[in-house]
Amino acid sequence: MLIIGENINASTRAVAEAITTRNQEFVTELAQAEVAAGADFIDVNVGAGSSSSQDEARAMKWLVAVVQQATDKPLVIDSDCPEVIRAALNKYQGKRLIINSVTAEPQRLEAVAPLAAEWGSGLVALAMGTGGIPNSVEQRLDACEWIMTQLTRLGIKPEQIYFDPLVLPVAVDSKQALVTLRTIEQIKSRYPGAKTVIGLSNISYGLPKRKLINRTFLVMAAYAGLDAVIINPLDAKAMSLIKAADMLIGKGSRGYTRAYRAGAIVD
Amino acid sequence: MLIIGENINASTRAVAEAITTRNQEFVTELAQAEVAAGADFIDVNVGAGSSSSQDEARAMKWLVAVVQQATDKPLVIDSDCPEVIRAALNKYQGKRLIINSVTAEPQRLEAVAPLAAEWGSGLVALAMGTGGIPNSVEQRLDACEWIMTQLTRLGIKPEQIYFDPLVLPVAVDSKQALVTLRTIEQIKSRYPGAKTVIGLSNISYGLPKRKLINRTFLVMAAYAGLDAVIINPLDAKAMSLIKAADMLIGKGSRGYTRAYRAGAIVD
Repeated sequence: MLIIGENINASTRAVAEAITTRNQEFVTELAQAEVAAGADFIDVNVGAGSSSSQDEARAMKWLVAVVQQATDKPLVIDSDCPEVIRAALNKYQGKRLIINSVTAEPQRLEAVAPLAAEWGSGLVALAMGTGGIPNSVEQRLDACEWIMTQLTRLGIKPEQIYFDPLVLPVAVDSKQALVTLRTIEQIKSRYPGAKTVIGLSNISYGLPKRKLINRTFLVMAAYAGLDAVIINPLDAKAMSLIKAADMLIGKGSRGYTRAYRAGAIVD
Repeated sequence: MLIIGENINASTRAVAEAITTRNQEFVTELAQAEVAAGADFIDVNVGAGSSSSQDEARAMKWLVAVVQQATDKPLVIDSDCPEVIRAALNKYQGKRLIINSVTAEPQRLEAVAPLAAEWGSGLVALAMGTGGIPNSVEQRLDACEWIMTQLTRLGIKPEQIYFDPLVLPVAVDSKQALVTLRTIEQIKSRYPGAKTVIGLSNISYGLPKRKLINRTFLVMAAYAGLDAVIINPLDAKAMSLIKAADMLIGKGSRGYTRAYRAGAIVD
């Protein structure tokens, strides 16, 4: 499974502060810790809301430069705002990257997807439209179908797309884990070239021992066909489960035994 | 998921010794520990090989009496030998129990299945015939189909059957976890009334940190439709994952939160 490190995100207060104060050392250490723990991509998110989009764009340019100086790993440019994404791309060194994200909202898709087309980048596509996250598998697949049609029209290949089936709390609706997992299965079956990605934490909202629930869900998602996960790679237990899951879904035991020899498998 | 406690098994040296010396206290404590940890059934196995089948039958009668005195939970009568199973049944108090096991070997099935028919018990059916464990999903399903036909002829209902799809080491053949998981899915789809059960430990044979692999496999099996597992219920991490998995496959959060309040959820 592809590991997208989630740690450099301004929703965490310490990260927000480091971005505001342009604390290069903090960001460098965090990025390098993610890579050392096994991240394949580093997600970067400067947050939104309090500052102007120009401030956000400046912060993103700074963040991209700092993280790219800290590591060779490719980045996931994570923003709701097309101008912020464009600013990041203009600063970006190298060709391999992912833009996060578009939805089935025409306005957002029309603004962001052309950037992915122009740069040949990966693109996370959330299985939702203007009405929020749909409750059912069918509605999420409808959103994916609409997105796939639009992205194809814009010259984006299925191989560039990372569909995010989205996750709602199982404490609110007991069928929601299955909805996400079945959506992953259906996306993989309908669009064999496309990839799937999820973030985990919503699933356990409102329940105790959330990390345990997140990890259990992640193993099920691996079996359902998940290609990539946005996760804290410093969670050694989750990373160990991913190695074991990769082995069990037929990818061979080499990755697992290599991680074991490196002392990275904990139970 | 139904938890079948595996601990009272003579393949463990201390248990073999306790059975040989008729150490009632040891067996009582072990059975009660399994129940306290969440076992729904207690598997009892007196081993085979060194002793005569008459010795085994005597040991099994003693074991059934001791475990039934220790707990109200039903038992799984686990033996290769029909006479040993019959001896256990003659000693058994109550109606709810499972016999472990038959295979697609005609001789074994003809000797054991009538006991399950007579007693109305559950019956574990291994997806294999005389040639050992088949490599492919198709061959395992062929064995299940043959068994289903024979058991139906003998008056056994699908609801009594626990199909064990069997597990081969993933270190030997990287596709074997998927073979078992797909077999579970197919059994559940072909025989909606029948149940599925597995033992875990084979999957991780030859690899380090085996418990982690076993637990990861168990979570995938839960998603694939597994109904019951033969497991050490004193493995609190595995039991916690089962609670989380049951919740994620749509059974509601009550079992999980109840276990959490009892201090039984560990991560």
